[in-house]
Amino acid sequence: MGKNILIKIEYDGTNFSGWQKQSNARTVQGEIEHVLKYIAGEEINIHGTSRTDAGVHALGQCASFEWNSKMPFEKLPEVMNRRFGVAGTGRSGAPGDIRIISVEEKPEDFHARYSCTGKTYRYVIDKTGDIFIRNKVLQYPGADRLDIISMRKAAEEITGTHDFKCFETSGGTPRETTIRTIYNLTVESDDNNIVIEVTGDGFLYNMVRIIVGTLIEVGEGKKSSSDVKAIIESRDRGNAGFTAPPQGLYLKKIFFGEENFCV
Amino acid sequence: MGKNILIKIEYDGTNFSGWQKQSNARTVQGEIEHVLKYIAGEEINIHGTSRTDAGVHALGQCASFEWNSKMPFEKLPEVMNRRFGVAGTGRSGAPGDIRIISVEEKPEDFHARYSCTGKTYRYVIDKTGDIFIRNKVLQYPGADRLDIISMRKAAEEITGTHDFKCFETSGGTPRETTIRTIYNLTVESDDNNIVIEVTGDGFLYNMVRIIVGTLIEVGEGKKSSSDVKAIIESRDRGNAGFTAPPQGLYLKKIFFGEENFCV
Repeated sequence: MGKNILIKIEYDGTNFSGWQKQSNARTVQGEIEHVLKYIAGEEINIHGTSRTDAGVHALGQCASFEWNSKMPFEKLPEVMNRRFGVAGTGRSGAPGDIRIISVEEKPEDFHARYSCTGKTYRYVIDKTGDIFIRNKVLQYPGADRLDIISMRKAAEEITGTHDFKCFETSGGTPRETTIRTIYNLTVESDDNNIVIEVTGDGFLYNMVRIIVGTLIEVGEGKKSSSDVKAIIESRDRGNAGFTAPPQGLYLKKIFFGEENFCV
Repeated sequence: MGKNILIKIEYDGTNFSGWQKQSNARTVQGEIEHVLKYIAGEEINIHGTSRTDAGVHALGQCASFEWNSKMPFEKLPEVMNRRFGVAGTGRSGAPGDIRIISVEEKPEDFHARYSCTGKTYRYVIDKTGDIFIRNKVLQYPGADRLDIISMRKAAEEITGTHDFKCFETSGGTPRETTIRTIYNLTVESDDNNIVIEVTGDGFLYNMVRIIVGTLIEVGEGKKSSSDVKAIIESRDRGNAGFTAPPQGLYLKKIFFGEENFCV
């Protein structure tokens, strides 16, 4: 039994077909396992906390794996980032869109997916129309006219423990229950952006993106903030808002253990 | 004879094979002519001021063309931007990486390429290593340790009228002369970026990118700022610095007529 290693990862999802390994597509898991095999000289299967979709970004994705190599695991960020072509590491040509932020050794029974106790996602809506950031934000007609106060009232209705079936796209991995707890859901706005951040113990398929779409429709006045309780109770996807595109979505932080979720 | 129209354009060069039309590649000229044909119902050939390379961005590229359509030319930005999928215009699916900034009618003898009297380019070098902007900046090892004072001294040597053959990549369109005038060349630095801006009456093939590479090598101490005069006088490409990648380069402004070039 080798060491049980946890890495924290950031990536720009623009040019990935999502996290999960696929035979004929460039994925984050696939790229990381490819580099680990190059370094360790053996196949390494990594367990990611979240299977982010194509186009979704990460500021703090996590993954765990067994490490049997003689190379000290502490060197992994430096060695891996050089292979990934991260800025400042001198290898040109590689796209530089994944970066290992940190590495640590964990107890034998730790697993990046099953030991996760919560996640924070960030969703960025752009007000500027800047064409240079179009794959990193949602550019939405009328974003500068959204009613932020109503969106915050709706966010309060969503916060807490509920059956969130209304915010689930069918077709994802089957789940035991659609009950989840949202610890925190904030809507901040400045001259350039609206930033929605949500922390929960877990999220259903497309749940964050449908919450964002619902909040936008509230901000537009198409739905009222007081409708939201009834939308959740209906358990009907058809009553919630549209699914916001993946480009504005960032997996921001993974929680393990008893951390304070109100970040 | 129709109206002679000038448009100002910004684009994110990441997913274009440069400005110039090609039969089997996505180019800025190709996309603009495609949309103009859709609107006008006839082939329209546009004349761009600068043939930016693959990966190069523009904040203020210009192009002129003859407009015979009954549609008032003043509507072109709105109508074209909707086709391009620019944010806020409501057409989803289109990539939104070109935007028409403005349109105006020009005298019959105006030509966006031949009437140009100067250009400003911006080059952005990143210090942060942020993976989310990697196609918009140069990410260069040690960028945060470059000696800005020396780079500014070297920039002074480059400013003025010189034979700039040392800053030309062979293989471009043949030119009558390699003498050019640099009106202004600035190097600014803050916590996140080094920004180099250069204004001249014209630029040889790759000239801005080789100037940037040369300034970087001065900033690293590989070349001294006092070497630069001799490098220019040598007229030898081998003595100048490396060609900086296209990703950090922005065509910022085109001058027509007697404007003040010291922007």
